[in-house]
Amino acid sequence: MNNDKFILKIINTLRSLSMDIIDKANSGHPGMVLGCAPMMFILWCKIMNFNPNKPLWGCRDKFILSNGHGCVLLYSMLYLLGYDYSLKDLKNFRQLHSKTPGHPEYNPNLGIEISTGPLGQGIANGVGMAIACKKLNINNNIFVMCGDGCLMEGVSYEATSLAGHLQLNNLILLYDSNNITIDGTLDITFSENIKNRFIALNWNVLDVKNGNEDFDDIYEKILIAKKSINKPTIIIVKTTIGYGSVLSGLSRSHGSPLGSEKTLLLKKYLFNYNYCSIPFYIDNDIKEYFSNLRTNKNIDNTISDIEYILNNKLDDTIQKIREVKLDKNYSTRESSGNILKKLADNLDVIIGSADLGESTKTQMTYDYITKNDFRPVYLNYGVREHAMLAIANGIATYNIIPIVSTFLVFITYCLAPLRMACMAKHKVIYIFTHDSIMVGEDGPSHQPIESLTILRSMPNLLTFRPCDTKEVSGSYQIALKYDGPSALVLSRQELPNISSSDMDKMKKGGYIIYEPENVELIIVATGSEVSLALELVEYIKNIRIVSMPCCNLFDLQTDEYKEEILPKNIKKLSIEAGITSGWYKYVDYTFGIDDFGTSANINDIKEYYGFNVDKLIELIKTIIKIE
Amino acid sequence: MNNDKFILKIINTLRSLSMDIIDKANSGHPGMVLGCAPMMFILWCKIMNFNPNKPLWGCRDKFILSNGHGCVLLYSMLYLLGYDYSLKDLKNFRQLHSKTPGHPEYNPNLGIEISTGPLGQGIANGVGMAIACKKLNINNNIFVMCGDGCLMEGVSYEATSLAGHLQLNNLILLYDSNNITIDGTLDITFSENIKNRFIALNWNVLDVKNGNEDFDDIYEKILIAKKSINKPTIIIVKTTIGYGSVLSGLSRSHGSPLGSEKTLLLKKYLFNYNYCSIPFYIDNDIKEYFSNLRTNKNIDNTISDIEYILNNKLDDTIQKIREVKLDKNYSTRESSGNILKKLADNLDVIIGSADLGESTKTQMTYDYITKNDFRPVYLNYGVREHAMLAIANGIATYNIIPIVSTFLVFITYCLAPLRMACMAKHKVIYIFTHDSIMVGEDGPSHQPIESLTILRSMPNLLTFRPCDTKEVSGSYQIALKYDGPSALVLSRQELPNISSSDMDKMKKGGYIIYEPENVELIIVATGSEVSLALELVEYIKNIRIVSMPCCNLFDLQTDEYKEEILPKNIKKLSIEAGITSGWYKYVDYTFGIDDFGTSANINDIKEYYGFNVDKLIELIKTIIKIE
Repeated sequence: MNNDKFILKIINTLRSLSMDIIDKANSGHPGMVLGCAPMMFILWCKIMNFNPNKPLWGCRDKFILSNGHGCVLLYSMLYLLGYDYSLKDLKNFRQLHSKTPGHPEYNPNLGIEISTGPLGQGIANGVGMAIACKKLNINNNIFVMCGDGCLMEGVSYEATSLAGHLQLNNLILLYDSNNITIDGTLDITFSENIKNRFIALNWNVLDVKNGNEDFDDIYEKILIAKKSINKPTIIIVKTTIGYGSVLSGLSRSHGSPLGSEKTLLLKKYLFNYNYCSIPFYIDNDIKEYFSNLRTNKNIDNTISDIEYILNNKLDDTIQKIREVKLDKNYSTRESSGNILKKLADNLDVIIGSADLGESTKTQMTYDYITKNDFRPVYLNYGVREHAMLAIANGIATYNIIPIVSTFLVFITYCLAPLRMACMAKHKVIYIFTHDSIMVGEDGPSHQPIESLTILRSMPNLLTFRPCDTKEVSGSYQIALKYDGPSALVLSRQELPNISSSDMDKMKKGGYIIYEPENVELIIVATGSEVSLALELVEYIKNIRIVSMPCCNLFDLQTDEYKEEILPKNIKKLSIEAGITSGWYKYVDYTFGIDDFGTSANINDIKEYYGFNVDKLIELIKTIIKIE
Repeated sequence: MNNDKFILKIINTLRSLSMDIIDKANSGHPGMVLGCAPMMFILWCKIMNFNPNKPLWGCRDKFILSNGHGCVLLYSMLYLLGYDYSLKDLKNFRQLHSKTPGHPEYNPNLGIEISTGPLGQGIANGVGMAIACKKLNINNNIFVMCGDGCLMEGVSYEATSLAGHLQLNNLILLYDSNNITIDGTLDITFSENIKNRFIALNWNVLDVKNGNEDFDDIYEKILIAKKSINKPTIIIVKTTIGYGSVLSGLSRSHGSPLGSEKTLLLKKYLFNYNYCSIPFYIDNDIKEYFSNLRTNKNIDNTISDIEYILNNKLDDTIQKIREVKLDKNYSTRESSGNILKKLADNLDVIIGSADLGESTKTQMTYDYITKNDFRPVYLNYGVREHAMLAIANGIATYNIIPIVSTFLVFITYCLAPLRMACMAKHKVIYIFTHDSIMVGEDGPSHQPIESLTILRSMPNLLTFRPCDTKEVSGSYQIALKYDGPSALVLSRQELPNISSSDMDKMKKGGYIIYEPENVELIIVATGSEVSLALELVEYIKNIRIVSMPCCNLFDLQTDEYKEEILPKNIKKLSIEAGITSGWYKYVDYTFGIDDFGTSANINDIKEYYGFNVDKLIELIKTIIKIE
């Protein structure tokens, strides 16, 4: 290709079109686009299998732009390829309600296979997709483009370590090595030997010395990578940020538009003065090239879809879950474990944990996935919470339900991919166990306080804190039906089965679990505090107990229902072993813990923090009169 | 030492004492303790400089237990060394209010240099301490012990990458390589070549083949590491988890007490049947050994303290901050930048950013720290948010104030070390800019929605969202005086200076910034929404505007003050461009954003989400009558 002037013209058209888009928006990231255009062209026009007319074709190769700020290059490419973008869409780059937002947003119909932007995520997403393809026996490649920033993020290290361990030879990482980050040249922060780092992680390492101009080398190295038998491959492609522009090689080219003047200079340089100064101009021969490419791609239409959305017998599974015996007092993590067994037998799931499988009760009797066999249901993620959740996002795009688990307190390690799952509404189920100070001896570093508040603040996430086995079952039933992520927050300690708990009523988020003849006070409780609240009934007349396993669902109910459960004119008190601030939305008084916990056994903890009947009666006496 | 039976006896005493402690508590982690006892002994008794009678001696070597679950080994060691622990304290391991909690909790007087538990953090803390020592010209070593789990966490990768880059030769990492994690043998998840990984990151790599028994080798390798000229060192020490016990080599030995029976078997094995079966028994010759060691250590008393708490002229600095000119409309991130310049000239600080120094306005005209010169004030952390915050915790233990910065939305990458800072009350200042959907074009992945709710839910953290330059100044003044962490949440966009804003009144968290003759409605706003709320005053009579830059401080005020500002009998509305749920604690009505944002320019964003006078008037009409 190196001597093919027409190919150079296509690549330069990608470059100049992208600059026009950024200039029009007066916002965007030119630098990486100019350096990566050759890779983008070669991947999409010379390597990848896909069909713009059938974007959801199950066997397609997938492309992830982990350095998502360069999305204008991807939009330009997809536009030329014939995905459902118009020139107007490109001109609306970064504008309200456009198809071309400032960072890629998950939309496979438009060729956007995952949302990216926060650095490093895309690499881990790619690992998830590669795992899913192995499991579903799809013979394709997952291509991830990334920059220096992505490789500096811990999540990319975690994910690539697991990828090497699992020998994901279907994963190919194109590393845009341009020696620049936002704050300057790479030598101010980063002096690793990337090649040796990846060899240490069991990867193939290839390199392209001149990624700006040596198209043949890029092409050949990708072909070599595709032939890898037992390793993922990173291709280190040396490029120049802002290539061809007057800001070439400077970090200043990263995040601000060139502007029409500098763009004109760029075009003159790229096209050797044989250019059109009209923005968004695309020459007829270029249009013709892509038109032919589309026609050829149409051949792929004859390849029938692989039915990878296998066996998603949701209703059937839910029925089976309903039948799980519930006749014992379990910790809610144990109840969850029992239900998971049924679920795993009936659905396409990948269950896993960040090295806490036994504690989270996810690692039951399953075989686990190894480099030699991806059929098993269980995946050992290692002590890699951040990568685990980002990998789950990748898996979810293949309609396999990833179920991932760790201790609740460790959401602090993996909130970035959880947020991305919420944004993209990936169907992921999080099992977060050891859900309060009742964890006991491990102490404050292991005792969640603020975690429920954090989870409930995430749009699109259903956060469940079930009070017993029935509510655990109900949580799973709702989560399986919900087209988005759900978090199950579960107890370490045993909890009594409550006769009046109800797996169907809980679908409204909160419901009355005990009703007296007259209601003088309403107590709203969740999880382990529901049975505690119910103990009060023996001592205090006239208190209604509301179980509120899912605030997010309760918020969606009608005003009538809310008023029925939590009427305005009756005093209300929340009891939850965590930060109280979020509860004032529902109640007038709160009881919880607004400081970190302490290392002690559970009984001392309950006593010290007042999670017992005596202390609560004392508190309630300050709210209502008790006979 | 290998042929010195007495040294073997000391090490085995450490092992058996630790098992007795765990058995007594009926809770704890025996596995790592039995494997790491030789390292612990050699470090503290043959290598490290410290003085149990003067634990805060500034030039001491420091020890960090990154695999904090093995803390019983550290407590045993510190007890024998003569730190302020009694046998009773050991017997109270993991009990309420004990000096020996379930994971190490920051308490330098007791030899606990930092809180650990969540894996990987300790390694990054050590990097922070090593940087601080370089800066303060302290000629010591920072020793970090860690396990496989620590090395699998992304934070450890990020931190060790930076440590190699900065050539921190004062940092020595002892890697307890026992081939076991909680879920089983390492080969189920981890097949890196650790040696090559660390060489790629510019570290020395040494190894000890038999860490259970080859004490000489451990000792000699540490001596070699101490001589390193320009690299940090990792010593890969092969050990056996649960060494000497019947669970030797099994992951089952990790997290449950051996119990008296197995402990007795262990003692028989360790002491070759020449043992005492009484729990907590320590032979006289052992006691004598440590008594002599203490006497020798006392010599160190003659070395005078290094005055590393230099120049902390806080009041003086605050006065200088107050004098910073405030006569322009700035974005609050710019105001912050202006104040930082003053601050950096007057205090021991290390200011830095995770590759967003220009955007967060922290990277002004400063020189930056390099491997050759640690005197500059600025540190380029690279794209490593998680490590940055954990490194800050380490720096803070040397009474240097770390000021670290990134975009607000990226707190999702680094919440674990932020939580640890809150627990340990480290004096760290976080600069989180680009604080709402007003970020604009970058879209939802870069637009915080839930972040303020998250920060405010963290105990001990002061979260500030100032409305203009004066409140930025006030935030810094409070943060500098506060013995704990503070977060400054700052705008990307320019905000008007408000004549009635007040850097002193804001010390109460919230205050009246506009008062009408009669108050019919109170609007509570923060940050960029304060000036918006003030615009309403032209159109609606009788609204009081309260600026609430710090909810956490407002919560600490007297009931009288709270009632004065937010009286119960007047309707109240909050306006903040973020999740509303936390505001019901203060108000009856809320206006905010309970969904993710969108990519668009700021004006379209304001219009679309209703952050303008027209929309707010419409809303207020539903609450009170407007003429």
